[in-house]
Amino acid sequence: MPRPSTVPPPITSVLEAAGTWLSAGMAAVEHRLGEITVGHGPALAGDAGATLAAGGKRLRPLLVLLCAGPAGGDRAARAATAVELVHMATLVHDDVIDGAPLRRGRPTVAARSGRERAVATGDLLFSRAFAELGAGGGTRQVELLSSASVALALGELAQRRDAYDTGISLERYLERCGLKTARLFECACLLGRVDDGTPTEPQLAAFGRHIGLAFQLLDDVLDVTGPAERTGKARGTDLLDGTVTLPLILAREADPGLGELDLRELDAAGAASICDRIAATDALERVRALAGEHVAGAKRALTQAALSREERALLGLVADGVVERYA
Amino acid sequence: MPRPSTVPPPITSVLEAAGTWLSAGMAAVEHRLGEITVGHGPALAGDAGATLAAGGKRLRPLLVLLCAGPAGGDRAARAATAVELVHMATLVHDDVIDGAPLRRGRPTVAARSGRERAVATGDLLFSRAFAELGAGGGTRQVELLSSASVALALGELAQRRDAYDTGISLERYLERCGLKTARLFECACLLGRVDDGTPTEPQLAAFGRHIGLAFQLLDDVLDVTGPAERTGKARGTDLLDGTVTLPLILAREADPGLGELDLRELDAAGAASICDRIAATDALERVRALAGEHVAGAKRALTQAALSREERALLGLVADGVVERYA
Repeated sequence: MPRPSTVPPPITSVLEAAGTWLSAGMAAVEHRLGEITVGHGPALAGDAGATLAAGGKRLRPLLVLLCAGPAGGDRAARAATAVELVHMATLVHDDVIDGAPLRRGRPTVAARSGRERAVATGDLLFSRAFAELGAGGGTRQVELLSSASVALALGELAQRRDAYDTGISLERYLERCGLKTARLFECACLLGRVDDGTPTEPQLAAFGRHIGLAFQLLDDVLDVTGPAERTGKARGTDLLDGTVTLPLILAREADPGLGELDLRELDAAGAASICDRIAATDALERVRALAGEHVAGAKRALTQAALSREERALLGLVADGVVERYA
Repeated sequence: MPRPSTVPPPITSVLEAAGTWLSAGMAAVEHRLGEITVGHGPALAGDAGATLAAGGKRLRPLLVLLCAGPAGGDRAARAATAVELVHMATLVHDDVIDGAPLRRGRPTVAARSGRERAVATGDLLFSRAFAELGAGGGTRQVELLSSASVALALGELAQRRDAYDTGISLERYLERCGLKTARLFECACLLGRVDDGTPTEPQLAAFGRHIGLAFQLLDDVLDVTGPAERTGKARGTDLLDGTVTLPLILAREADPGLGELDLRELDAAGAASICDRIAATDALERVRALAGEHVAGAKRALTQAALSREERALLGLVADGVVERYA
């Protein structure tokens, strides 16, 4: 399966619009991530290096740097690196939990090197994240990142608890998205700006939360629509893991049989067929519309945040990019 | 299998010798650990609560509080809590990695609730550790704890790499002990004393390292000698996990056949029989002697550290206690 492009639209458009400071900052983050993955011996270099090279959108570090602005310097780059390391650690551990064979079209660490090594590799990336902050950040940064990490783990636990439950409520789903995705986006925005003693900016936090939710909603649409060439994983992968997301929750209204399926019995063909049933309802349209509302909410938050005109414009581009990626 | 006593000798003797400040501090840590495990919903309360209730020696928090001294207050208690949370997270993840059914005579989280939940539970405990430091500590504390956590993960990776290799060298084994055990003990000692801007105390670091190594060496002896009623796990559990430790490494000299075993084929009876072969050599005696040298090294370090007479005496009791526990 071909892997998806490594430089997706939201990043390129923002990089083009910003001054060279942003490209330089993102390059510094990438360099630092590379240093960390080669600096701990061959086992980590192979496993974490593969996770790193598989790319991903680097949206979270981008948000850190954008919110920090041109004067963010080394401190912002370290915080951006730390957020991406936490994200990478979570991916590695999620793949242990889900037993997923592919991530972004490449073998997962768990599939490549065994669950045992994947657990330790995730722990290492996680520890390194806090080491980055310890070296250059303040305790407020540590507080923000650790509480976002707590939320990630709680989100994972909630997902386990809800696994295979095709009857879960909209509220449960949204709570999980908040924990698993939105909190780290929010954290990324705040990390760029906090100094010890500075009050956090609620508008920037709201921006991050909205972007995170929109991102997750559209990701869940993509799991249903594919195509696999673009997502790097088979259609219905979430369903095969027992993860019930908003498309199915909304599709249940028009096709109640979807609420009575036994996902434990599912194979790939069955998952694809459920995806078709979901796509035959208005559910995907409604999820996209909800994502659009969150993007609008993010932009409203921007108008009220204490930002320069350039910062506001660039963050607005990120918000647009999240939608465009899925258009 | 009965669980081991929850208040082992090293702690009780030190608590009796110290002023009430130490008991109060340890009670504060225990209270805080309890709060954290009940504060994140029923899933964590069940899993992490079981890990917490299973006890353990709380040696690491004790070292933090002792090194901080009577004036350590809330800051020391938070650091002590953080160290124990990292230790607990590691235990939960180690049990995922080893597939261990029992820990301290009770079912592991992995056995109780599945590997999936155990991965997330470990992540949560780990995140909470840094949240503790973020709230009350300085960035230097974060640096110390995160680099010790990096070492723990590297130690786990090294143990995976060496798994089932009955020919591994003494040096490799000692390096692993350094990463997996000694670094967190060292960290515990330093955490009690550092303030941002304070230079770390090399003598206190050396004390922690020596104690950690002695502790690990004697733990590895106990895995061979049992009895299970005391250790809470079957004899030869390390061997069954493919973990080759110093007793076997030294016993190979007198009984070279031990270096040619295939541990992958091993069952419980086979593990017990290898333990008997190891015990028939002088290996256990030599490991105990090496542990004794590390305890002596720890005490030498104490004489050179900047400590009050009471602090030195109490830390000396901890050093003695590590040996006595295994006498």
